[in-house]
Amino acid sequence: MVKIAVLGHGVVGSGVIEVLQKNAQSIAKKAAQEIEVKYILDLRDFPDLPYSDLFVKDYDIILKDPEVSIVVEVLGGLHPAYDFSKAALEAGKSVVTSNKEVVAEKGAELLKIAKENNLNYLFEASVGGGIPIIRPLNQCLAANELHEIYGILNGTTNYILSEMIHKGKTFEDALADAQAKGYAERNPAADVEGIDACRKICILASLAFGRHVYPKNIQAEGITRVSLTDVRYASAAGGAIKLIGQARELEDGRVFAAVSPCIVMQENPMAGVEDVFNAILVRGDAIGDVMFYGRGAGKLPTASAVVADIIDEVKHLSARKYLYWVDAGDGFIADHAEVSSRFFLRAEGSFEIPAAFGKVVPVCAEGVEGETAFLTESINEGEFDRARAALEQAGVKVLAVYRVID
Amino acid sequence: MVKIAVLGHGVVGSGVIEVLQKNAQSIAKKAAQEIEVKYILDLRDFPDLPYSDLFVKDYDIILKDPEVSIVVEVLGGLHPAYDFSKAALEAGKSVVTSNKEVVAEKGAELLKIAKENNLNYLFEASVGGGIPIIRPLNQCLAANELHEIYGILNGTTNYILSEMIHKGKTFEDALADAQAKGYAERNPAADVEGIDACRKICILASLAFGRHVYPKNIQAEGITRVSLTDVRYASAAGGAIKLIGQARELEDGRVFAAVSPCIVMQENPMAGVEDVFNAILVRGDAIGDVMFYGRGAGKLPTASAVVADIIDEVKHLSARKYLYWVDAGDGFIADHAEVSSRFFLRAEGSFEIPAAFGKVVPVCAEGVEGETAFLTESINEGEFDRARAALEQAGVKVLAVYRVID
Repeated sequence: MVKIAVLGHGVVGSGVIEVLQKNAQSIAKKAAQEIEVKYILDLRDFPDLPYSDLFVKDYDIILKDPEVSIVVEVLGGLHPAYDFSKAALEAGKSVVTSNKEVVAEKGAELLKIAKENNLNYLFEASVGGGIPIIRPLNQCLAANELHEIYGILNGTTNYILSEMIHKGKTFEDALADAQAKGYAERNPAADVEGIDACRKICILASLAFGRHVYPKNIQAEGITRVSLTDVRYASAAGGAIKLIGQARELEDGRVFAAVSPCIVMQENPMAGVEDVFNAILVRGDAIGDVMFYGRGAGKLPTASAVVADIIDEVKHLSARKYLYWVDAGDGFIADHAEVSSRFFLRAEGSFEIPAAFGKVVPVCAEGVEGETAFLTESINEGEFDRARAALEQAGVKVLAVYRVID
Repeated sequence: MVKIAVLGHGVVGSGVIEVLQKNAQSIAKKAAQEIEVKYILDLRDFPDLPYSDLFVKDYDIILKDPEVSIVVEVLGGLHPAYDFSKAALEAGKSVVTSNKEVVAEKGAELLKIAKENNLNYLFEASVGGGIPIIRPLNQCLAANELHEIYGILNGTTNYILSEMIHKGKTFEDALADAQAKGYAERNPAADVEGIDACRKICILASLAFGRHVYPKNIQAEGITRVSLTDVRYASAAGGAIKLIGQARELEDGRVFAAVSPCIVMQENPMAGVEDVFNAILVRGDAIGDVMFYGRGAGKLPTASAVVADIIDEVKHLSARKYLYWVDAGDGFIADHAEVSSRFFLRAEGSFEIPAAFGKVVPVCAEGVEGETAFLTESINEGEFDRARAALEQAGVKVLAVYRVID
């Protein structure tokens, strides 16, 4: 019998309790022992729940109870979630979390404390909701040198883009629809500004490359500027606009990471990932491309990933899982001007496309007139920026630029 | 330092050596110690290889060497691979294999011997080549009750079907092309008759449901009868023909499994899986649908999965991974007549579609005349069989029947 405490009884927390209860038998079998929730920490009261006697409001009760071996942090937000997790690890308790903000901001520190105390800090649910990605990335692909990882990491924005692409809704209408359906929050900034996707690509990049990539160090652009004309151009170019988080390791070992709306070409299976689904592609030297696909959010998918981590910690109460990265400062983060990408650019008016963009393919979108648009080949992003600046200095108004993913 | 022996220096075996050498540093870090290949068993001589001194022809040398802790069986075929694996486990050595035939036929027995000897028997590479599926199925989805698993499990047939669908080649031409490209063997029966996919769905079903599903107990149909007219109908119906291995757990706990060409509707992401790619969809009670996608075969992807298992065994030399199913006889395998599916049927001539098929949607394919074709709703397969038999007794010639996957 292993006793655990769950911090937070919101959507994920109540889902964790539900999954633990519903599948108690098969979970006990897989964990090789029973798992008992001894405490649930929440400031609210839930007098009508059958397990209302488990609720406490004072975290110290949990921290000081030697019977609790695992703390499940599903509070969300940086504070007090980070502080509670740190205190748990320092008190000799392993931690499971679904909190991408804490992992993206404080992962290296918490992993270090876990290691020093021979404990585990697991966070499968922080990326991709229920899609198993952290563990496969860490374990199943252990034989590979990973060079690149990218994906559709935010279900809300993918839903909005899907509505724009397939139903011709504007961004504003699609957002309102997503809010009505409960896919987007009333304050949608974390989703539509790319902040959520940024945290997730930071976690994936940190894990893939072994050094902490902090959100503050990478460019993140959301989808608020994506127009229906852009959507039409993307389709004419043979692709679809998706919000992509990407990270690559350069040959010199430095890392480039970014979040931006990209035109994903139809040949790429990611172009067909619709609605609230997420997909993550991992490129390894031996394995080639592997894609993981599923619902990126939702109560039970996320809870299911949390419970899988709990089971794993129960099985490894006195052994560490190898899941680790270090804080290596900022020096290894490459600027976007150092890497190469394909681009799409559209601008007002007719003009000769400057040679500085390299070899280009013009794109015409049905019903759009008085514009010039084209796809470049892979070009150094710094060179592209300079060519674009020269174009603007020559009086051309650039309307949109997207990275292109083949 | 852990010493291992590799049985077989064919495509996968030489790939394993290559990956172990190329990524030696990162592998040693992940395994927390160095891994040394002490022996390679092969009947052939490889005098020109830099590691030619590692080759032996007598398995007893490996079996009797107490320094060898892990045996990597990448021979293929049932014998002597099964016998060698069994002997290794009985001699106290953990085993890694990529051999789907051995796992599908003898998995329960070898897992039992491994358990009795506190050893591990791992086989990530046996399904999906380099796609991590066995481990996620077992670990990452541990919190779920799994009810269904299905997928495109054979890259060769998917390549052939893709060529038929997109280039209008006949089965025979597409097969010849696949053979010319090295995707299909000279004797393609194991692939095109569905035998390979059958072994893989047996392994997945055994793992998902905990009891060994043997190939002899399930119906497996290949793609040799798929015609270009069928392909055209599938497209007209809004789908694509894929060879699908599927397994479901019924409410009473029994298991249904089958391999057959199916019409996968376009809304399902699996419809867009082309060429030699594989995709496996897992349906759990909490997680919903999760899909894994990647190259299902190939030297380095498969070798990479084998090496990931080797690393895992090195890390668990004195601890068992929970990966297990039991031999439960045949009694729990449900007949297809007990489950329900949607169907597509095409037949010669014009006739009124009998009510016994339930509510149907007629399908017309461009350029096909003098036929009647339709999609059913979900219908008990036994009822469907009887309705079809009645149709044939009434003199109608049924040309093709496919299960439909939404």
